[in-house]
Amino acid sequence: MERIEIDTATEKKEGLAGEHFRLLHRSEGTPARRGVVRTFHGEIQTPAFMPVGTLGSVKGMSPEDLERLGARIILGNAYHLYLRPGHEFIARRGGLHSFIGWNRPILTDSGGYQIFSLNLLTKVTDEGVTFQSHLDGSRHFITPEKAIEIEEGLGADIIMAFDECLPYPSDYAKTAASLERTLDWARRCKAAHRREDQFLYGIVQGGFYEDLRKKGAEGLLEIGFDGIAVGGLSVGEPQEQMLHILDEVVPLIPEAFPRYLMGVGTPEDLVEGVMRGIDLFDCVLPTRHARTGSLFTSRGEVHIKNARYTEDDRPLDADCGCYTCRNFSRAYLRHLFMAKELLAIRLNTLHNLYYYLTLMEGLRQAIEKDRLGSFRNEFYQKRNPEIEGAEPEA
Amino acid sequence: MERIEIDTATEKKEGLAGEHFRLLHRSEGTPARRGVVRTFHGEIQTPAFMPVGTLGSVKGMSPEDLERLGARIILGNAYHLYLRPGHEFIARRGGLHSFIGWNRPILTDSGGYQIFSLNLLTKVTDEGVTFQSHLDGSRHFITPEKAIEIEEGLGADIIMAFDECLPYPSDYAKTAASLERTLDWARRCKAAHRREDQFLYGIVQGGFYEDLRKKGAEGLLEIGFDGIAVGGLSVGEPQEQMLHILDEVVPLIPEAFPRYLMGVGTPEDLVEGVMRGIDLFDCVLPTRHARTGSLFTSRGEVHIKNARYTEDDRPLDADCGCYTCRNFSRAYLRHLFMAKELLAIRLNTLHNLYYYLTLMEGLRQAIEKDRLGSFRNEFYQKRNPEIEGAEPEA
Repeated sequence: MERIEIDTATEKKEGLAGEHFRLLHRSEGTPARRGVVRTFHGEIQTPAFMPVGTLGSVKGMSPEDLERLGARIILGNAYHLYLRPGHEFIARRGGLHSFIGWNRPILTDSGGYQIFSLNLLTKVTDEGVTFQSHLDGSRHFITPEKAIEIEEGLGADIIMAFDECLPYPSDYAKTAASLERTLDWARRCKAAHRREDQFLYGIVQGGFYEDLRKKGAEGLLEIGFDGIAVGGLSVGEPQEQMLHILDEVVPLIPEAFPRYLMGVGTPEDLVEGVMRGIDLFDCVLPTRHARTGSLFTSRGEVHIKNARYTEDDRPLDADCGCYTCRNFSRAYLRHLFMAKELLAIRLNTLHNLYYYLTLMEGLRQAIEKDRLGSFRNEFYQKRNPEIEGAEPEA
Repeated sequence: MERIEIDTATEKKEGLAGEHFRLLHRSEGTPARRGVVRTFHGEIQTPAFMPVGTLGSVKGMSPEDLERLGARIILGNAYHLYLRPGHEFIARRGGLHSFIGWNRPILTDSGGYQIFSLNLLTKVTDEGVTFQSHLDGSRHFITPEKAIEIEEGLGADIIMAFDECLPYPSDYAKTAASLERTLDWARRCKAAHRREDQFLYGIVQGGFYEDLRKKGAEGLLEIGFDGIAVGGLSVGEPQEQMLHILDEVVPLIPEAFPRYLMGVGTPEDLVEGVMRGIDLFDCVLPTRHARTGSLFTSRGEVHIKNARYTEDDRPLDADCGCYTCRNFSRAYLRHLFMAKELLAIRLNTLHNLYYYLTLMEGLRQAIEKDRLGSFRNEFYQKRNPEIEGAEPEA
């Protein structure tokens, strides 16, 4: 893990602005690149994975845990934090960094995805969205301006424009109309945003229609953002379809912009996303799977509750250097999981996040050394259940 | 926290036996003493508190967490480990130390307390106990010999004789008969015990009857054990009654024996137990209370879900040096707890265990410096809700 520290917190945004993203190295023969995203709470070496801290903590992990794992940036959910404990509450505590004790960069989403995906929606108009809280059923009205107010209150380093998220699949006419709305909301977010110490990213929507995605990307570039995200992917489509959209969209985003693929994904998705020029990823998979006993290893996923691991005294992943793999056996991890011991979740989460963050470190090094193609081949070869020593799951 | 390390694992029991407990300093004017309990996995500075690792983990804490907190010894529950994953299973993994990745001393109770207190009892005879598993209702028959077999399989450094535990209150006749049985079982445990690298402690029973307690202590000394525990206390009686029994029992135990007060207790109980010459304590209070949001501080217990802490930006305990108090506010701890975030349990447990272990460190230093009386006074003064800066709970 990298341990580069720079104190950028006192720099002025003007000093950083032209260089929010710095390109360090272009991959030979692929759109992949090594870069660095600079914020007022420090730098993020890219491509990077951002652990998800929904409610002001990455589930079960302390800031110290995350630092020791090498996480450089975490994500917070504006929707959840708006409802509990509230953005004004957090602003009074000096913002999210201060409240949660995390002094490295934070990115907040705008809440759009949660409002649309948690089925809480009561009404969408061009003006904004009315929804009911999943906690107490209370009604809330969120406009693009309100979303920015919330994100400014939270005070993350990178904030996202408010967008409309469609279910999958959605037809062309519906997707086209929704894209217009998302672009209009993006414009209003840009106009509403005031904080000089935050970078605002727009989100390309447009479903699985190439011409709409093109329109979405061009619209955002015209408005002007600090970074460009690709949204509305990993919503139930086959991976091939997601990668096709990336192949279409990424070339439309100029090299100077950091590119963020929202809510993605599996280890395979990260490798393929990086290959296609993505710089930032976030996903609940490593933390959520940890809680259900699905563990990511260099040879594939291990479902630790499987009876085959009952008396398996080997480490989860002999190739892994994490605390869990250095100290405990599969038999112990399975025992903890079956007995519903809290330590199971802790050890599983430490491992899964280490796996994701180490995979990204491997990808960064491979880009630097112009060996991304062979890194990718080795990644898939190891996962091939036919090779010696591999253990296909029953 | 002390960080004294000695490698005793390769010593022979014969070399240690005469000195399983070494007395370092007698308190002036009280029965309290500073000592060291020596085992094949290292030393324990006494008086000491042992965090409870019921099922092969102290709930939510990794071995690294416990080492950083300064824990020198943890407790395992033979009853729980016998049922899941089983003592033979653990023996095949090289014993509990190896299975759970904890290389410092471990003490296992014999399972008696759980069998009697979890209301699983179906039948007690002089031969042994028949009970039903709380997991699947399966029937099991445990004799003193079987209890020793289980504890030898687990392989802890200190193991406990199998005893009968009575409900509170129990009448004289019942208590007297039960004491006879416990003494008979103690004799059989001693006869059955083979492992040279384990120290076997007897348990003084006898309820709240002074003459029976005397008989219990004398009976154990006649049989011969490596240490003497006081059982059957903190079972619902007023603290005064418990302390009275300690006042009666402790003087009956020769100075050369480590004295262990089982399943006790509150911070006040620890201070009073130490004052009366107790060397070892264990209790689920700090870990269990952590999970329900009750936090021990130098000024008393804080119930973190109390609305008064909603916007309280102060640390939980300004006098505390734990990770939680150094990095987070009461407002954040309350938010995590109310949102049922896993990190709440982690931060609360780190704090409560640190509080208990630091209290014991303070008691050890006070004994060494012959200022136990003033330590005790300061302990109670700080907890007085009338003094400046104190915050009585509503």
